[in-house]
Amino acid sequence: MKTTISIDVLSAAIAAVRAKSPLVHSITNYVVMNNSANALLAVGASPVMAHWKDEMEEMTAIAGALVINIGTLDTGWIEGMKAAGLAASRRGTPIVLDPVGAGATSQRTNAAWEIINLCHPTIIRGNGSEIMALVDADVKSKGVDSSASSDDALSAAKKLASETGAVVVISGETDYITDGTEVYTVEGGDPIMTSVTGMGCTATALVGAFAAVVSDPMEAAAAAMAVMSLAGERAAANARGNGSMQMHFLDELYNLTPETL
Amino acid sequence: MKTTISIDVLSAAIAAVRAKSPLVHSITNYVVMNNSANALLAVGASPVMAHWKDEMEEMTAIAGALVINIGTLDTGWIEGMKAAGLAASRRGTPIVLDPVGAGATSQRTNAAWEIINLCHPTIIRGNGSEIMALVDADVKSKGVDSSASSDDALSAAKKLASETGAVVVISGETDYITDGTEVYTVEGGDPIMTSVTGMGCTATALVGAFAAVVSDPMEAAAAAMAVMSLAGERAAANARGNGSMQMHFLDELYNLTPETL
Amino acid sequence: MKTTISIDVLSAAIAAVRAKSPLVHSITNYVVMNNSANALLAVGASPVMAHWKDEMEEMTAIAGALVINIGTLDTGWIEGMKAAGLAASRRGTPIVLDPVGAGATSQRTNAAWEIINLCHPTIIRGNGSEIMALVDADVKSKGVDSSASSDDALSAAKKLASETGAVVVISGETDYITDGTEVYTVEGGDPIMTSVTGMGCTATALVGAFAAVVSDPMEAAAAAMAVMSLAGERAAANARGNGSMQMHFLDELYNLTPETL
Repeated sequence: MKTTISIDVLSAAIAAVRAKSPLVHSITNYVVMNNSANALLAVGASPVMAHWKDEMEEMTAIAGALVINIGTLDTGWIEGMKAAGLAASRRGTPIVLDPVGAGATSQRTNAAWEIINLCHPTIIRGNGSEIMALVDADVKSKGVDSSASSDDALSAAKKLASETGAVVVISGETDYITDGTEVYTVEGGDPIMTSVTGMGCTATALVGAFAAVVSDPMEAAAAAMAVMSLAGERAAANARGNGSMQMHFLDELYNLTPETL
Repeated sequence: MKTTISIDVLSAAIAAVRAKSPLVHSITNYVVMNNSANALLAVGASPVMAHWKDEMEEMTAIAGALVINIGTLDTGWIEGMKAAGLAASRRGTPIVLDPVGAGATSQRTNAAWEIINLCHPTIIRGNGSEIMALVDADVKSKGVDSSASSDDALSAAKKLASETGAVVVISGETDYITDGTEVYTVEGGDPIMTSVTGMGCTATALVGAFAAVVSDPMEAAAAAMAVMSLAGERAAANARGNGSMQMHFLDELYNLTPETL
Repeated sequence: MKTTISIDVLSAAIAAVRAKSPLVHSITNYVVMNNSANALLAVGASPVMAHWKDEMEEMTAIAGALVINIGTLDTGWIEGMKAAGLAASRRGTPIVLDPVGAGATSQRTNAAWEIINLCHPTIIRGNGSEIMALVDADVKSKGVDSSASSDDALSAAKKLASETGAVVVISGETDYITDGTEVYTVEGGDPIMTSVTGMGCTATALVGAFAAVVSDPMEAAAAAMAVMSLAGERAAANARGNGSMQMHFLDELYNLTPETL
């Protein structure tokens, strides 16, 4: 793993999550809920998964960050996401948006934009295709996989960051984190991570945990992506397939402390 | 593991679940469904996850117990829970309620009470904060984690049991099982269990399995909590983190028989 | 593992999934989503889980196959399933239906038939009880488990295939695949597979992946069931319980290539 932020910044961020154990309110997709919750617990954060519109105001009030992931969307969930996003935005609670599948259908792309315009996320994390589809409606992504080149994706990320005021994160072989001007990078991870469902969603969840305790969203996002890369590399060394990779990845997150960096 | 019930009672309970393989109808949260179903299979029970209001009457008719867990609640699911709870109550089928996140929002606390008043659960299982929040609306819990002291929690549990007629279970370092008068305890388990999402929900699922075949709800609940503790201790001995803990825990449940007690 | 189709056909099918990486649009139940997605990734397919009625038309347009699994059904989801099924049927995209719990409640049986009559699935896969319940409304299944004899089930499968024009797959100790006239069989697997939740749903997901790239539905279904059996046998050799079985099963799928047959 190699990243723009210093080991000291990364180390302090990891320690802060473990010390403060922020409550991360997650409205995420059915496929990844269990793994996202376990990943949050593994780094020392405290997950709560809740989407019921009626309780969003109160749930957001006790959370350190809100994560909105549109992976298995429908009309009712969009209502919960908007209610939570508005409440978090009003309180100044960091919001992280994962526009899963943007570009796969126009309904997804539109729902992502509706949430962006209404709730002003602090950080948006997606793969190259998803970020490009948000910037250019003509980009079609194939489901939830990415097939965009990193150069095109980075320029879309900068544009999206400038337009929305959000820090934009693109994950891929090299991760890019940008506020429209500056670009941080994280290199590392392992190709087998693309064979474990929801690794991107896990990254988004961890971005939420770090955003709750690190005030600079560029640093928060870079720290989360660095943690993903490191744990991914270490887990891949012992994985025989995507089943054991999923398990080892959580174990490596669990054992990642400033001391084991 | 150390518990108030005798090894003979525990052993008979474990054997009864394996022999009768009760169908446990679970209306539970998205985060834990896979693990709850696997935990039920591991102890020899037969899980069915179903929440559709229209089929609750017929599904409850073939079930040995009903588990209601309000972890990822919304209006539609409350309707399903109430329909199932009423049908089970009418038939005398044991009902186990897990008031996940009671106290985190008033909507959760209210929904739990609505279900209690309508369906009269046989057993209520929660962590200390959740049980206290049901008894005293001023107790706020932080999401789904517990931070209550056991003394305060036990006295809340006794009060809740007396008010509702349900056996109340509080899980924690020491588990308490009470009908308002008597108190059974289970000691054991391992701290790493708190880093695996949904371990409390798994406990509730197993309480359902034991309640289906053991007529005394105090014994059923104590047996389930003892099984949790034992499997937790054994699994923790081999766990490297919360990922492998989740896997080993199921394996230990799977291998827990009267012979391996 | 022993099957009617030749090793060459099986090998070509496995290679085709890995080469073409078909997008498998899955509307499946909450319990199994994570494992089904990982199983699809393990064999080289690309999963997308989506059920929102509004985006079904566009999502189906980019998919190589549609999998409909009625495991945790409700009214809203039936609408999504019908919208997707109609769109796939209009386009000639292969549709695989898993009538989970048919016979457990009349609502499930009716919902399965509604989907069959509206969308004309290419392949229907269930356990013996479910298939029998579709053919004879008097057959009651206990939740999602099968207890039917294979002879009775096979004759029901033939009848269902003739009535619907679908290839019908019954999984069990021996799997049967029939178009109403011919019968292919797959023998193998391991009894511990029945203690892992959603193995049948995983089989259905894989049938979808193979149906997307193999034009003959009898061969596609047999190849998928053979892959299940093989991976199951190999995984069982290393499993200590249903927890490790679930993990090893994915690893074995991941490592299954024409070379490792």
